[in-house]
Amino acid sequence: MEDEYVHGYSEIESDRLVDQANTLANLLHNDTVYSAGSKVLEAGCGVGAQTLMLATNSPDAQIKSVDISEESVNRAKLLLKQHGVSNVEFEVADIFNLPFEAETFDHIFVCFVLEHLKDPVGALEGLRRVLKMGGSITVIEGDHGSCYFYPKTKEAVKAWECLVKCQTGLDCNPMIGREIYPLLKNSGFKNIEVSPKIVYVDSSNPELVEGFNKKTIIAMVEGVKDQAISSGMIDLETWEKGIKDLYKTTEPDGVFFYNFFKGIGIK
Amino acid sequence: MEDEYVHGYSEIESDRLVDQANTLANLLHNDTVYSAGSKVLEAGCGVGAQTLMLATNSPDAQIKSVDISEESVNRAKLLLKQHGVSNVEFEVADIFNLPFEAETFDHIFVCFVLEHLKDPVGALEGLRRVLKMGGSITVIEGDHGSCYFYPKTKEAVKAWECLVKCQTGLDCNPMIGREIYPLLKNSGFKNIEVSPKIVYVDSSNPELVEGFNKKTIIAMVEGVKDQAISSGMIDLETWEKGIKDLYKTTEPDGVFFYNFFKGIGIK
Repeated sequence: MEDEYVHGYSEIESDRLVDQANTLANLLHNDTVYSAGSKVLEAGCGVGAQTLMLATNSPDAQIKSVDISEESVNRAKLLLKQHGVSNVEFEVADIFNLPFEAETFDHIFVCFVLEHLKDPVGALEGLRRVLKMGGSITVIEGDHGSCYFYPKTKEAVKAWECLVKCQTGLDCNPMIGREIYPLLKNSGFKNIEVSPKIVYVDSSNPELVEGFNKKTIIAMVEGVKDQAISSGMIDLETWEKGIKDLYKTTEPDGVFFYNFFKGIGIK
Repeated sequence: MEDEYVHGYSEIESDRLVDQANTLANLLHNDTVYSAGSKVLEAGCGVGAQTLMLATNSPDAQIKSVDISEESVNRAKLLLKQHGVSNVEFEVADIFNLPFEAETFDHIFVCFVLEHLKDPVGALEGLRRVLKMGGSITVIEGDHGSCYFYPKTKEAVKAWECLVKCQTGLDCNPMIGREIYPLLKNSGFKNIEVSPKIVYVDSSNPELVEGFNKKTIIAMVEGVKDQAISSGMIDLETWEKGIKDLYKTTEPDGVFFYNFFKGIGIK
């Protein structure tokens, strides 16, 4: 029955997910608009989720999007083609060894990339090299240490911490958001401005409860279940209570808070 | 020498503290303005720090400010007199037993009060009684669970947690900010809107580093030193490293994040 329901409403569901993606995308991207003809480098485009927003917001900019994974680049190409977006060129390239001459780009955009790098300052220095003098870099990252919720139970916090530990174990830094200011400064950028981008959710906004608490945050936590339990981070009973308790944040009394950071620096 | 310096610059220092107070006050209060002639109850005015902002922002509203402590009310009266503010009447009164008839006030304002109460819903229900139909309540609280910083060390986190534990031990709820939505809802208010009020500080804003990180947050943590150590919450060595590490958030690479919540509900 559940399967039938899901398929029966698949179009509505799909619309809702797009709405949800738009809500977050607006929060993160709505103040990033590049002028006609400007050359923009997106470093670490992945499968193109942010590329689509970037290119749509700045339809007359010339965007070059690179990623180290050829498979990701191919998926990103397909995604943009499906959406009829044509102002992006893709290229497979390593962020630590960019195949561009110095001072090639007017602007650089890096979203959800630094968290995966062992040497984020090294990456930013390399990006600075290919940026024109006076050009801007925009960096967006989340910070899992910014997350809290109500009701809060020990088990819910433990389940959440499993996500943080699993991501840290993959050589990621899930708390890098708070570091954007020092990272940009230590890479030589000037006039740095960092702003938090807040996601506050209570039951007055059921769409966001569904899309952010359930489909984004709790889904992400649930994704590390096997790794968390098999590595002995948490026992099954605590895990199950933790997930159940996290779902309480989606009930009428529930509240959820998370924030991203967006930083802009000038060469 | 240090003493001489402090006195020599006392006027500048005083100006700076006022500027700092204004920065936070603007963040919390700038969207609270009551119209001429409207009757406003401030419940739990304490020594008048918020009363001053409230009365200054709404010079033609008729404000009644109450507190259970006669000493606090007297200090608040003096503070407002010193600032030449005359649109506030003070009264000693218990928030759980307000000496007002039902539906007396057009608006109610409650700032940094619920965190100190064992029964915040009971207090809000009592406030709702004296509010006119269609009138608004505004609630402002902090949330110590929202606090994080860079660099982050175990000892700095432990020192911060001592503050949280000491306040919790005093029957306070230092994490009540996130609960404003359910508290207002469970007290019968409608059309509730809660917004986070963010304090993000990095070294691009040295005034805020000084005024918020050092003079507000770290000073607050340092204030519980004796209690934290004598109760065995933390040992002296860990405490001292923790405080030293918290001061690292005030250096050029440092970052500090905290947020308040402001909620508005309608009867």
